Amino acid sequence: MLIDYDGGPFNGWQRQAGGQLTVQGAIEAALARLEPGPHTIAAAGRTDSGVHATGQVAHCDLTRDWDTFRLAAALNAHLRPHPVSVLAVVRVGEDFHARFSANERRYLFRLVARRAPATHDLGKVWRVHSPLDLEAMRAGAAHLIGKHDFTTFRSTHCQAASPVKGLDEVSIVELPYPAGVEYRFTLRARSFLHNQVRSIVGTLERVGAGAWHPDQVKVALEAADRTACGPVSPPDGLYMTGVGYPVDPFADL
Amino acid sequence: MLIDYDGGPFNGWQRQAGGQLTVQGAIEAALARLEPGPHTIAAAGRTDSGVHATGQVAHCDLTRDWDTFRLAAALNAHLRPHPVSVLAVVRVGEDFHARFSANERRYLFRLVARRAPATHDLGKVWRVHSPLDLEAMRAGAAHLIGKHDFTTFRSTHCQAASPVKGLDEVSIVELPYPAGVEYRFTLRARSFLHNQVRSIVGTLERVGAGAWHPDQVKVALEAADRTACGPVSPPDGLYMTGVGYPVDPFADL
Repeated sequence: MLIDYDGGPFNGWQRQAGGQLTVQGAIEAALARLEPGPHTIAAAGRTDSGVHATGQVAHCDLTRDWDTFRLAAALNAHLRPHPVSVLAVVRVGEDFHARFSANERRYLFRLVARRAPATHDLGKVWRVHSPLDLEAMRAGAAHLIGKHDFTTFRSTHCQAASPVKGLDEVSIVELPYPAGVEYRFTLRARSFLHNQVRSIVGTLERVGAGAWHPDQVKVALEAADRTACGPVSPPDGLYMTGVGYPVDPFADL
Repeated sequence: MLIDYDGGPFNGWQRQAGGQLTVQGAIEAALARLEPGPHTIAAAGRTDSGVHATGQVAHCDLTRDWDTFRLAAALNAHLRPHPVSVLAVVRVGEDFHARFSANERRYLFRLVARRAPATHDLGKVWRVHSPLDLEAMRAGAAHLIGKHDFTTFRSTHCQAASPVKGLDEVSIVELPYPAGVEYRFTLRARSFLHNQVRSIVGTLERVGAGAWHPDQVKVALEAADRTACGPVSPPDGLYMTGVGYPVDPFADL
């Protein structure tokens, strides 16, 4: 399943005991309306509360020989009124696993600088008051590319076995925004640590604001110490935009 | 004041007896926190319930000699948590009236065709299931340009003195949209009748879907009969994007 959702009303992706609304829980409940459950779906990334997706991927096992278009439509009908949609369903082999087969995750972070609070994009962007120094942020980001111990940039609750990860891209573009300016961060890696994107963006914002020299990002990284990180950004501007697999399951769409 | 708002939670622009949340009411209440009221503000366009704005203009009379930046910031502080922001405040002459001085109104309508329901843009676009015929919609729209009796395309509740109006632009562009396609309608006129934009877009959607021949738009227009109109579109995709004045009050920003 290719899935998009507005993370605002959800307590993150992962199903929780206690009945809080989660994306996984909503989709599993929709599946249970179609085939007797319980169902367990696995996603490429378990996004946090308030984090959005335009290209989340998840898989599940079903018994009936569903037409994929009808399955997507039926799921969407049962997902009302929650802001989560199944964009596409494809049949995959037994060896496919949405999480373990993935070899790339892609994220977008939208940061908007303007004096006035966000309105149309409330909860969809991180709004700061003043414009940022784009070139300084790019210089800071350059220190993070490659394979590093990212202990500084991961949550103390991160459960990954190792803090050593490769980071393939942190690019930033500046776009016009009504009565302001938008900075779009694109991040790409085989996998990310918990809170890694928000820790990176929050730190680079400090660089863009002039509070940090770009080279302090390198110092913070090399410290391999969580307390060396800048402030973690809010979840509002973060979007999981896509997942890469050795063979793209959606290639024929 | 240059104002933007997400029309979703508001019962339209115009203040109502009974305490329903309206954009005008929210701004007037914020003004009353700054100077003793009651205040009455006048807007270029009184948008309907659920209609958005990125460039609404309104004026008011104040007693204190406000710094315009501080006034905008103070209003925004008092407008929390409603999704309405004052983007700019400028001082205008006694002869300026946000509504009566305006000589152009501009609207955007966002129509999205995709199988999956809207998520991130829920309430912000009109979502239809199937792609539309862009060239047919353009051909239909062409019949509407110029000065006409727009009785067909105005609400029976419209209070304008005359149904004869000039329409300067109805242009449509097609843009990529996640798992679908977006059609953006730009409409421009000195002034619009009540529900005119939504009546035009709703009718053109029927043309795009193949239910109406483009020339039926001309027949409907010439009928000068409300019952000849296509279905009125929902408000969700409609944005008031700007107002023209003989001298742009925001030119120095």
